[in-house]
Amino acid sequence: MKKRTLPLSRVYRLLEPGPVVLLTTAHKGKANVMTMSWHTMMDFEPPLVGCVVSENNYSFAALKTTKECVINIPAMSLAKQVVGVGNCSGSKLDKFKRFKLTPMPASLVAPPLIAECFANFECKVVDTSMVNKYNFFVLEVLKAWIDPTRKNPRTLHHLGHGTFMIAGRTIKLASKMA
Amino acid sequence: MKKRTLPLSRVYRLLEPGPVVLLTTAHKGKANVMTMSWHTMMDFEPPLVGCVVSENNYSFAALKTTKECVINIPAMSLAKQVVGVGNCSGSKLDKFKRFKLTPMPASLVAPPLIAECFANFECKVVDTSMVNKYNFFVLEVLKAWIDPTRKNPRTLHHLGHGTFMIAGRTIKLASKMA
Repeated sequence: MKKRTLPLSRVYRLLEPGPVVLLTTAHKGKANVMTMSWHTMMDFEPPLVGCVVSENNYSFAALKTTKECVINIPAMSLAKQVVGVGNCSGSKLDKFKRFKLTPMPASLVAPPLIAECFANFECKVVDTSMVNKYNFFVLEVLKAWIDPTRKNPRTLHHLGHGTFMIAGRTIKLASKMA
Repeated sequence: MKKRTLPLSRVYRLLEPGPVVLLTTAHKGKANVMTMSWHTMMDFEPPLVGCVVSENNYSFAALKTTKECVINIPAMSLAKQVVGVGNCSGSKLDKFKRFKLTPMPASLVAPPLIAECFANFECKVVDTSMVNKYNFFVLEVLKAWIDPTRKNPRTLHHLGHGTFMIAGRTIKLASKMA
């Protein structure tokens, strides 16, 4: 694997713009992956991420029970896989095989990294107090990986009903914002 | 005002892609505005939105006390105002005047809509249980407005340090995703 460690202080710069991500879990020896767009940064460092994983998702029980996951960020070349993963359930098939996604061992958690994604954040669940009411989990990023060969990957941003905005050009303005 | 009611069932399609928003509050007869990127959808309808408003922001006390706000979505033409609003405090100046933003009366809450933003969501705080620990508020969108004359507005997505991704082209894939 050519990926390098990404400093935890830089994680928010990849999640704050709101990309669709692929969330991997592992339960009873079986890995699974789901598509997720409902997430937000909650703190810079250590990075905290809040996310909704519906109880209707097969991943819900794995996340609630094992308290581990990996957030994987796909670029636009994975658009079909993102939609495919979001349209079927891991209860019925092995989504890694079905969508030709390559699981790679993580360093600190059991769920795999997805090799084809340009960034991977190994996470543990640190707060479940809003799980019963909103299916909302608070995650801490323990370890972050980045593919240094991928310059300006174009992320996908879900607009509903299979429509996605593809990340466009970037601008820089004089700012004191973190 | 040329804006029209947007059905609440469509709110998620504007927030899920992760745009920077301008959050307005009103406290003791004085309106204020801040820049915010840490937000996520938490339910479709009624739309629930989770967001982090730091206790370091002047808006924090207003939001915690009045339990009302408006989420306003700016397009790229407002990039300078977005950065400017994020770089100063309402404790020291009237940001509406300073950045030539036009406050308009909301229908159900005290904080104003920003006329220049293409969408405005009037919100009340419905859950403060994560405010003390994470500055995380759960909002319910009560009323949503959209400018029907603005086709495909290009939203801003914060990459950190005053760098923004501008929303690019959209693609549609066959999907069963909501």
